[in-house]
Amino acid sequence: MSPAIDGTHDAALQSWVESANDPASDFPIQNLPFGRFRGEDDADWHVGVAIGDQVLDLHAARLIASRDMNRLMRLPPETRHILRQTISQGLRAGSAQQKTFQAALRAQSKVELGLPCQIGDYTDFYTSVHHATTIGKQLRPDNPLLPNYKWLPIGYHGRASSIIPSGQGFHRPKGQTKAPGQDAPTFGPCRRLDYELELGMLIARPNVLGEPIAMADAESHVFGVSLFNDWSARDIQAWEYQPLGPFLSKNFASTLSPWMVTLDALAPFRAPFTRPEGDPEPLEYLDSPANRAQGAINIELEVWLQTARMRQAGHAGERISQSNYRDAYWTMAQLVAHHTVNGCNLRAGDLFGSGTLSGPKPEQGGSLMELSAGGKQPLALSNGETRSWLEDGDSVILRGYCQQDGFRRIGFGECRGLVLAATV
Amino acid sequence: MSPAIDGTHDAALQSWVESANDPASDFPIQNLPFGRFRGEDDADWHVGVAIGDQVLDLHAARLIASRDMNRLMRLPPETRHILRQTISQGLRAGSAQQKTFQAALRAQSKVELGLPCQIGDYTDFYTSVHHATTIGKQLRPDNPLLPNYKWLPIGYHGRASSIIPSGQGFHRPKGQTKAPGQDAPTFGPCRRLDYELELGMLIARPNVLGEPIAMADAESHVFGVSLFNDWSARDIQAWEYQPLGPFLSKNFASTLSPWMVTLDALAPFRAPFTRPEGDPEPLEYLDSPANRAQGAINIELEVWLQTARMRQAGHAGERISQSNYRDAYWTMAQLVAHHTVNGCNLRAGDLFGSGTLSGPKPEQGGSLMELSAGGKQPLALSNGETRSWLEDGDSVILRGYCQQDGFRRIGFGECRGLVLAATV
Repeated sequence: MSPAIDGTHDAALQSWVESANDPASDFPIQNLPFGRFRGEDDADWHVGVAIGDQVLDLHAARLIASRDMNRLMRLPPETRHILRQTISQGLRAGSAQQKTFQAALRAQSKVELGLPCQIGDYTDFYTSVHHATTIGKQLRPDNPLLPNYKWLPIGYHGRASSIIPSGQGFHRPKGQTKAPGQDAPTFGPCRRLDYELELGMLIARPNVLGEPIAMADAESHVFGVSLFNDWSARDIQAWEYQPLGPFLSKNFASTLSPWMVTLDALAPFRAPFTRPEGDPEPLEYLDSPANRAQGAINIELEVWLQTARMRQAGHAGERISQSNYRDAYWTMAQLVAHHTVNGCNLRAGDLFGSGTLSGPKPEQGGSLMELSAGGKQPLALSNGETRSWLEDGDSVILRGYCQQDGFRRIGFGECRGLVLAATV
Repeated sequence: MSPAIDGTHDAALQSWVESANDPASDFPIQNLPFGRFRGEDDADWHVGVAIGDQVLDLHAARLIASRDMNRLMRLPPETRHILRQTISQGLRAGSAQQKTFQAALRAQSKVELGLPCQIGDYTDFYTSVHHATTIGKQLRPDNPLLPNYKWLPIGYHGRASSIIPSGQGFHRPKGQTKAPGQDAPTFGPCRRLDYELELGMLIARPNVLGEPIAMADAESHVFGVSLFNDWSARDIQAWEYQPLGPFLSKNFASTLSPWMVTLDALAPFRAPFTRPEGDPEPLEYLDSPANRAQGAINIELEVWLQTARMRQAGHAGERISQSNYRDAYWTMAQLVAHHTVNGCNLRAGDLFGSGTLSGPKPEQGGSLMELSAGGKQPLALSNGETRSWLEDGDSVILRGYCQQDGFRRIGFGECRGLVLAATV
């Protein structure tokens, strides 16, 4: 099921791209995440792989014939695997391809990084039981976790058109809200703007409509993982979401990071998938021995906040929470199997959001709604500012990395977004 | 705001395509709906306009340079209007273009009709207050209509990948369901399969992320209207939909009819938009004088059911309900204005579903859930069969047309889907 550990993961591997050998780099030769970039004069996106502070243009390096990332994502998993091996070998210190590859390198700082692929359909899940419980307590103190939660991965469809690349600002949304006790809603800028710490999973191989993907095949349909911020307008959400779910409270913007870390790269960081004693066993279509053995992935996640005042002071921001993807209640394979069990077809470039990835402790909340207890306990920042909700000029930066004895640390880069004032 | 009535609507117009002059034809020269077709040997879709039992290939008729429907949909409304005039003139009896156009005609029966365009994002609304009330009564007898219903058009995002063209069958979905009183859910084929009678609105001009579309401009962003069946698995829906909305109960298949009837063609059938006395006035961003004067559209809608037994007996099916789009609680312009008021961007080819269009009378329910009272009062068919829910081999056919004194009747064609058995 999951990709195996092989020579590409060897901690001793060094690259002739010197910046990749820096232990602090997110993109050592053991990582090789895929993304799209373009230079100032480029009309179209190029397909690239991050290595240190550089990006390797796969077309210029004569590794692929097309410049279409979604086409590359549709390749059979064996072919993707061979492509990874080839890139790894070419970037190794002493490689005979150094000259060809060197000509295909661009400094990341000199190019624009876009969305990693063209997004088809976007589905958001709700896989953190800690997030679901904390939010549920605020809405339904007596009944925080709904009875279906432990039986199926709750998910719903989101908006693909408003997914924006890391670094792009967005305007505070306006909409209808209704304060408790008021007779009628009012219209105006959102007053409870929030972020959501998520991972984004990008789909690789499509399945045919009517043909579910079994657990055993599920991970071969996932190309890679990025960081994802599902910005949320909590006051708009509270008024609009019954009975059909969130809509305008979510679809004004969602930010996706540029690099897709492949499941091949994540192979060393797999972990057993377990559930608290007494919880129901997954139904058969959501279960497999491989999923129990290594369905989880050990990915450390961080949320950083940089307020306008910090930015003016030259302060890069402050870490406001940390969690780990290992704590999710449903695995990636289970999301794929569940999404398709009714015959629904996935296409290359479709995006799954993990849902807000909160940890078990209160300070591990993946949103301000959790960290500020619904706005009742404002978060204190070290420069004296406080935050119940996001303010104009705030930047939220998501970071992620895998770290484990015997392996090189691999990183996800960053997912950054800036809140701009509402338009007049 | 809305397109005006002009010479293209003149009831006296006749076409040199004889079949278009048949009063029973859905596609007289006053209609001219857009769609995509291909012949047996065509790799790609062609852009066409229906006329009688023929389709005019717009590229072959030298009317457009590209064969990309979505590109055509992005044209400014004035250009679309001129294109309509040109097609109308060329198809009129006595036209000088008859020879050129004749060479660009194909019999509809000899080509495959596909989805009318490439669908981007798909949003489903809930605009029939009659549907919302009847369904609400089944779920919440004391509180059928939620407090937000009359203040904002409830909507949620749906699945684009599984939207299929009219005529294509789909397999009964499988999934988790939980019967009342049971401790745990079970997995198997859906037992409460339903259809939903909807209209589909296809978006024309995009807006930029962060820039809402005002009511006055809203209709210029709609290209046309098709028939849409939002197939629903009611038992899967009941178990999965809290708290984030319907998911696998809807995304296994949705059927869209091939022809987009333009707002230009619908100009003669506009009607005042009114609300029952005592209902709240729409907030300012959802209101305009033009919307009050002619925001509604008089479109007659019908649902036909053809069971396998009827098919074997050579029986074309039986009409099981009728309603009218005029009875919707929110207008098309309001849907566009609401969807974008938070800055959400629409793209050409995006689809809005109207939501199930039920009329005010019980027999005007737009789904079996309404007509059979949640399965408690099976619908009696004239051949002795009954239906609480759809059975394998059932075909559901949606039809729509506009009819009004002084104008030619214009039709929407049909939206047909066949329920196949669940896969083993």
